[in-house]
Amino acid sequence: MAEKELGLTIKKEQDFSEWYTQLIQKSDLADYTPVSGCIVFKPRAFAVWEKIVDLVDNKFKKLGIKNVYFPLFIPEKLLNKEKEHVQGFSPEVAWVTQAGNTKLNEKLAVRPTSEAIMYDSFSKWVRSWRDLPIKYNQWSNVVRWEFTHSVPFLRTREFIFNELHTVLSTEKEALEEGKDIIEVYRDICENYLALYGIYGRKTENEKFAGAVFSEKLHYIMPNGKTIEGPCFHHDGQNFAKAYDIKFIDKNEKESYVWQNTYALSTRMLGVMFSIHSDDKGLVLPPRMAEEKIVIVPILFDKGKDKVLSKCKELKKKLEKYNAILDDREDYSPGWKFNNWELKGIPIRIELGPKDLEKNGVMLVRRDGGEKSFVKFTDVEKKVEDTLEKIQENLFNKSKEFLEKSIKVVKNKDEYKKALNDKKLIKACWCDDRSCEDKIKEETGSKCIVIPSKQEKISGDCFYCGKKAKLWAYFGKSY
Amino acid sequence: MAEKELGLTIKKEQDFSEWYTQLIQKSDLADYTPVSGCIVFKPRAFAVWEKIVDLVDNKFKKLGIKNVYFPLFIPEKLLNKEKEHVQGFSPEVAWVTQAGNTKLNEKLAVRPTSEAIMYDSFSKWVRSWRDLPIKYNQWSNVVRWEFTHSVPFLRTREFIFNELHTVLSTEKEALEEGKDIIEVYRDICENYLALYGIYGRKTENEKFAGAVFSEKLHYIMPNGKTIEGPCFHHDGQNFAKAYDIKFIDKNEKESYVWQNTYALSTRMLGVMFSIHSDDKGLVLPPRMAEEKIVIVPILFDKGKDKVLSKCKELKKKLEKYNAILDDREDYSPGWKFNNWELKGIPIRIELGPKDLEKNGVMLVRRDGGEKSFVKFTDVEKKVEDTLEKIQENLFNKSKEFLEKSIKVVKNKDEYKKALNDKKLIKACWCDDRSCEDKIKEETGSKCIVIPSKQEKISGDCFYCGKKAKLWAYFGKSY
Repeated sequence: MAEKELGLTIKKEQDFSEWYTQLIQKSDLADYTPVSGCIVFKPRAFAVWEKIVDLVDNKFKKLGIKNVYFPLFIPEKLLNKEKEHVQGFSPEVAWVTQAGNTKLNEKLAVRPTSEAIMYDSFSKWVRSWRDLPIKYNQWSNVVRWEFTHSVPFLRTREFIFNELHTVLSTEKEALEEGKDIIEVYRDICENYLALYGIYGRKTENEKFAGAVFSEKLHYIMPNGKTIEGPCFHHDGQNFAKAYDIKFIDKNEKESYVWQNTYALSTRMLGVMFSIHSDDKGLVLPPRMAEEKIVIVPILFDKGKDKVLSKCKELKKKLEKYNAILDDREDYSPGWKFNNWELKGIPIRIELGPKDLEKNGVMLVRRDGGEKSFVKFTDVEKKVEDTLEKIQENLFNKSKEFLEKSIKVVKNKDEYKKALNDKKLIKACWCDDRSCEDKIKEETGSKCIVIPSKQEKISGDCFYCGKKAKLWAYFGKSY
Repeated sequence: MAEKELGLTIKKEQDFSEWYTQLIQKSDLADYTPVSGCIVFKPRAFAVWEKIVDLVDNKFKKLGIKNVYFPLFIPEKLLNKEKEHVQGFSPEVAWVTQAGNTKLNEKLAVRPTSEAIMYDSFSKWVRSWRDLPIKYNQWSNVVRWEFTHSVPFLRTREFIFNELHTVLSTEKEALEEGKDIIEVYRDICENYLALYGIYGRKTENEKFAGAVFSEKLHYIMPNGKTIEGPCFHHDGQNFAKAYDIKFIDKNEKESYVWQNTYALSTRMLGVMFSIHSDDKGLVLPPRMAEEKIVIVPILFDKGKDKVLSKCKELKKKLEKYNAILDDREDYSPGWKFNNWELKGIPIRIELGPKDLEKNGVMLVRRDGGEKSFVKFTDVEKKVEDTLEKIQENLFNKSKEFLEKSIKVVKNKDEYKKALNDKKLIKACWCDDRSCEDKIKEETGSKCIVIPSKQEKISGDCFYCGKKAKLWAYFGKSY
C-alpha cells in the first residue's frame, strides 16, 4: 500500500468530521456494519474499552459494589411504570414483537437502560434495612434508536456502558455516595484517559428521564461541540414510588428507598480518540495503550544480524510494555514509522547500525515527535519517564484546550459571535425554562451544564436580561 | 428467619428439579424475572462467571486471540445467507420490527449467534494471506427463543457466551487450532470448574447449523440427563462460500478461507452448581469461589473481646482468600454455619474461647463436613492444603459419577432398561440416520456423542442389528 493511502488524507483542523471518520477506520478502531447506526468495535478499540472496564471494576469493588446481569428485554408494562422515564425513552426504543413465527402477546423493549427491569426485582428483594444498601453494577449493551446522524463511538444506536444502580436508606447517604462515585469516574477520566472535563448539574429540562437531578462530566470536542461524559443521576424516591421499593427501617417504620444511578459508556472512547489524536493518526494516553512501544530496526545488509539480535534483546527487556518488534522485511522503515504512528503506539524505538555503534537507540515520542538518543543502559528508565511525560502532556493539553475554548459573554450579540467561533460559552444566567427554550429555538445551542464550582454573579441574565441566578455553560452539543 | 426456611427443604436425590430450583434461589445465585425464560444473574453467580471470563481471556490472549464487539442486531437478509444456518436458528429468533413508533423496513434478528454479522465484515476485511489468520472473540448476550420449559442457567432464552470465530488459510491449520482451543476449555472445566466431561463429535443430525462437524464436551447431570458443554464447530468453507470470504494466497491464487467457531456459555454455571452441590446448598470448587473462607466466632460474654480480636487477626492473615468474618451478634453460630454452607464457602473456621485456650481453630470442609483442629501457627498451610484437597475431591467425584453412570448395552432391551435407570449409555452403533431417527422416535433419547477415543467394535448395532461402525453414547438430554 502506498504511504499516502495508509495515512489520513485530511487535517483535523480542516474538517474534523471527515478526519474523525478516516481516523476511526484507518487506525483500525471501528468499522461500519449493515445495521445502520451500529458499529464493530475492532480489537484496538475494544482493548482500550476493556482497560476502562477493569479500572471501573477494580475501583467499584473497593466500594463494595457487586456486578450482576439482568435481562436484555423489558416487558412494555414494566417500562411504563415510571411516567417521566417512559416518556423520555419510548420514542427511541427498539421493540421485539415476534419470536420465530409467533407474534408475542406483549412487546418487549430492548433495554435502553435497565431501571425498569432492575427495580422490579429490587422491589421483591428489599424488605428491611438489613437488605440495604444494594450497590449493583452491570456492563450492558443498550439500544437507543435515535433517528439523527450517527457517529462511531460518539453516537451509536447500540452502545455499551456500566450502569450502577444503588438503593439506600437515606437521602444523605445517596448524596454522599454520589460524590464518591463521581470521584472514581473523574480519576479514571483525568489520570488514565487524560481528559479534563467540567462537572456540574444539567438543567431540569436536560436531566435524566425520571431523576431528581443529573450531574455529569462534560468535554469539548475539537469541533467546538460539547459532549457528555460519565454521569450521576439522583433518583430520590421517584422510582421507589413507581416500582414500590419500600423497607422497614431500624425504628420499624416503613418508607421508600432512595436511589442513584451512574454510567460511563463507550462514547468515552470516541471522546478520547478525538481529543488526543492528530493528523498522523491515533494518539493514545500511554496508560490506555495495550502496546506502549514499537521497536523498528533499520536494516542494511551489513551488520543486520547484530542489529536484529539487539532489537530482540530490547523487546525482551521491555516486555512489560508489550513492546512490538516490527522486523518485517517487506516494509520499509518509513512505512513502519507511519503505520505505527497511525495506530497510536506511544513510543517508537529506532535502532540501526550507527545507533548500535554508539551503544544506544533513537527514541521518538508519538505525542510531539520529539526524538532523543538514549544509551542502552538508560533505555528502561527513559521509557518509563517518557510514558509518564506523554500521559501528563496529553492531560495538560486537553485541559488547556478546554480552558482556551471558554468565552465569557454578557449579552446576546457576544453569545452569537462566540457560538460562531465554536466556543464553550460561560455566562450569568436566569435558569428559567422559558429563557432556556428561547436560546435553543433561536440559536440551536443550549445550556450544557451548571458547574458545581460557582463564582459570584457579575451581571444580569445574558439572554433575557432578567436577574441572573447562576453561572452556566452553553454551546452546541452532540 | 428460622433455620428451616433458610435451607433447602428437599433432597437432591429425591427431586433434582425442585432441589435445583431451591438451590438457585436460596443460595442467592439467580432469580426469575417478568421476562419469561430470562433470569437475573445475582452477584454470587455472576462473580463465578467473571472468573470463567478471566480464565478464558487470559488463555486466549496467549494464543493470539483478540476481543472485539459486533452489533446485537442482524438484518434478516444477512442471516438468510447460509441456508442450513438460517434453518437451524430462525424458528427461535427474537425479531425487532419496530423502533419508537416506526415500523422498520427490514426486520432485525436479535443475535442467536454472530456468524452472519461477523462474516459479512470478514468478507470486507480479508483480501490476502497477510490478513490471516483472524482470531476474534466476543463475549455476547444472545437470545434463542426456545418454547420449551426453561431452567435457570441450564436453558434460558437469553444467555451469555464467548464466541470465538477464526479465519484461516488451510484446513490443516483449522483442524490443529481446534485441538488447541478445546484443550483450553478442557483445562478450565477440569482444573477450575472441577468437571469431568466426555469429548467427541455430534452426529450429522445434531451438528451446528452450517458446520462441517461439531465437537463438544458433555456432562451428565444428577438426574441422568446429559448436557452439552464447550464446543468447537469446524465450518470448513461453508460460511466462506455463503458470505464470500476469499483471499489471495502466497502463490497469488484466490481461494475461500477455512473457518472455526468455539463457545463456552453461562450454562456451565448451572452444570457446575448442579453437579457439586448437596442437600445443604451450594458447593463451589475453591478456585471458582470468590470468598474461600468464612470465620465464625463462637462468642460468650466472657472472653468475647479476645476471641473477636483473634478472629480479626486471622481474617487479615487470610486476606488473599477473601476471608469473611461473620461477627454479627443478632445471628447464632448455628444459623451462620447453615447460611454459609448454603452459600458455598469452601472452608469454615470456628473459633471459641476453648479453641483460643488451645491456641487453634476448628476448620470445617464444605465438601464433606470433615472437621479438624488446627494450631494457629499451621492455619495458613492447612487452609492452602485443604482448598487444594477440596478442588481435587470435587473433580474426582465428578469423574467417578460420570464413569459410574456409564452402562454398556448390546441390544434394545438393555438400552431401554439403562435409559430407565438414568444411565449414560455406551453402545456399538451403525451411525445411520434412519436408525438415529428411530431411536429418538421410539425412546425419546438420542445419540449424545461419538467419543474421540474409540475402542474396538465388539458387536453389531445395538438398535438395528446392522454392522456397527463406532462406539457412541446415548441418553436423554437437556
